[in-house]
Amino acid sequence: MNSRLENLFAELKKNNLDSALITSKSNFYYLSNYYTDPHERVIGVYVSNNLDPVLIVPKMEVEDAIAAGWADDIISYYDHEDPWQLFLDYLKKNNRLPKSIALEHDHITLERFEAIKRILPNTTIFDAKDILANLRVVKDKKEYTLLKQAANLADFGVETGLNAIAEGVSELELIAKIEYELKKQGVQEMSFNTMALTGLKTASPHGTPSNSKISPGDLVLFDLGVIFEGYCSDITRTFAFQSITDKQKTIYNTVLAAELNAIEVSKLNTSVGKVDQAARQIIQKAGYGDYFTHRVGHGLGIETHEYPSMHSNNDLPLKTGMCFTIEPGIYVPDTGGVRIEDMIFMTDQGPEVLTAHPKSLQIVG
Amino acid sequence: MNSRLENLFAELKKNNLDSALITSKSNFYYLSNYYTDPHERVIGVYVSNNLDPVLIVPKMEVEDAIAAGWADDIISYYDHEDPWQLFLDYLKKNNRLPKSIALEHDHITLERFEAIKRILPNTTIFDAKDILANLRVVKDKKEYTLLKQAANLADFGVETGLNAIAEGVSELELIAKIEYELKKQGVQEMSFNTMALTGLKTASPHGTPSNSKISPGDLVLFDLGVIFEGYCSDITRTFAFQSITDKQKTIYNTVLAAELNAIEVSKLNTSVGKVDQAARQIIQKAGYGDYFTHRVGHGLGIETHEYPSMHSNNDLPLKTGMCFTIEPGIYVPDTGGVRIEDMIFMTDQGPEVLTAHPKSLQIVG
Repeated sequence: MNSRLENLFAELKKNNLDSALITSKSNFYYLSNYYTDPHERVIGVYVSNNLDPVLIVPKMEVEDAIAAGWADDIISYYDHEDPWQLFLDYLKKNNRLPKSIALEHDHITLERFEAIKRILPNTTIFDAKDILANLRVVKDKKEYTLLKQAANLADFGVETGLNAIAEGVSELELIAKIEYELKKQGVQEMSFNTMALTGLKTASPHGTPSNSKISPGDLVLFDLGVIFEGYCSDITRTFAFQSITDKQKTIYNTVLAAELNAIEVSKLNTSVGKVDQAARQIIQKAGYGDYFTHRVGHGLGIETHEYPSMHSNNDLPLKTGMCFTIEPGIYVPDTGGVRIEDMIFMTDQGPEVLTAHPKSLQIVG
Repeated sequence: MNSRLENLFAELKKNNLDSALITSKSNFYYLSNYYTDPHERVIGVYVSNNLDPVLIVPKMEVEDAIAAGWADDIISYYDHEDPWQLFLDYLKKNNRLPKSIALEHDHITLERFEAIKRILPNTTIFDAKDILANLRVVKDKKEYTLLKQAANLADFGVETGLNAIAEGVSELELIAKIEYELKKQGVQEMSFNTMALTGLKTASPHGTPSNSKISPGDLVLFDLGVIFEGYCSDITRTFAFQSITDKQKTIYNTVLAAELNAIEVSKLNTSVGKVDQAARQIIQKAGYGDYFTHRVGHGLGIETHEYPSMHSNNDLPLKTGMCFTIEPGIYVPDTGGVRIEDMIFMTDQGPEVLTAHPKSLQIVG
């Protein structure tokens, strides 16, 4: 059994829990080392007492799961079969019907919850969410290395985008170039839809890229990341094309000061809320508080957005091994938006910034 | 109110339901026309009685939702706020506390279900899954047009991949080229991770592309699709590079015969199960039944995989306006795999094949 499963066992024991059935894509990968996108199909890692863990996967993925290193039992099912019934049959046959089972309440759908209640009517159900979040929030050295490599590729993506900025180039062309070069580097998957926004569209924090073309005086914003061996990166940089107004420059430098200050305060044991506030206060003092409409960042690892949420009310203290983004932004509808985002990894010495692309205002062309 | 919301109202009324809160990304888009990826944040469309619908979105997306055409009330929240509390406040203030509410049981997580029960302790909760599935399964003319355009782009993607096949080209390079050309055509997002597999890797139905390079005698399999204005396409083609063995040729022609037969039987009122069986019988007769390890296809529309699941036990009859894939495959570990997939749209005249790339065996180079 791998050390992650052993840690999970230890946590279950500590909580007087018999068993856990872990079905989210990210925790499934974390525990099994098998990376798959199940779409609507059921996947699961089942652990109980000190018995060997069991995998649940569609029949057509059995070979892939074994190739990823899974050496214990596998329950597999055809599309016309009911995986829950097969799971129950397995538990009965092996005398493993649990008294209690932990499920991920932030992932399991009501429909699946009800299916599990139906097959295990005498089993008490608990929430495994916090156990898994607390295991995953502290990254080990291997995870650090993967996150750092993912961050390096994100830097390369921004560099590629920056080099492609020119009058008349569209947002979608920028994205096509960035992803083409990244895929040639061996990247299999972006960690989310690459964002390239120009002009006033930068004022939308979640804007949709289109055929809009770069014009002189535009702000150009890139927000992108890759998945490297299952681990995500995430970076944002904003550039000016040919010229910049005084107001845009003020916004840029305010966001930059806010970002640097948030990194500065990210010491061990500082609360997550203080990190948000460190950025927010600078933006508020500059008079743009109403235009910073989101939290300062989010945890990342196997998921682009994972625990913890870096918002102002969160009193969770920073610990060695945590990885999160710091990404303040100011979005003014008639002026444009600026966001600057880095990935931070907490070490014993304090915050290490994994993404490295320069941040001082750059006017291109 | 748009006609989709009106249809939802009518269904709720028919089921004696007071209200519905729809929170899945796909149904949210279907009902609101606002396309967004909420990640872990809450989004929702709330409808009750004959009152105006209400949208729930993060504060930073309000402008985007309005730009997408939403003209009714919006409940918006900052990241540090509890959207459920704001929703409750809204309901109280507007005297709209429902007696019953329908949620999507196949989407809502247990955690959110419990949050809703907490704010609405006196409201009975029902499942909206079937109502929404039945509304979405019959596509209208506009949806047909979008699916057809998405299918055309998928054809273009296969054509691009086919033209890039050459000795020494890697799977990831094939993908980079395909997606680059598609993004230059204005595609913002692929409908799933593009698959290009070579050689024996084609024997894995859900294989992961890598730096594996094309060699003479390889099978090369492409499975890809795009999202065009919110609607997905999905196509698979398999080619041979330079040569093909007799066994591979038999497998190819068996899959092709199975695919054509499944399309042939897809008449109005035929059951979904019969479509699967029409493909499966041909593959079984050829002695490859154990190597066709998945259902014949899946519905598609706003989601790549949506209702109905095209498996052998499904007795749902085909109706005008349904859109689904037919994609039999044979996967033999020491020989390779072949899958051929098309998108089918049911018209009054029978099945229309939306994807058009040629299917007869093609030996490249």
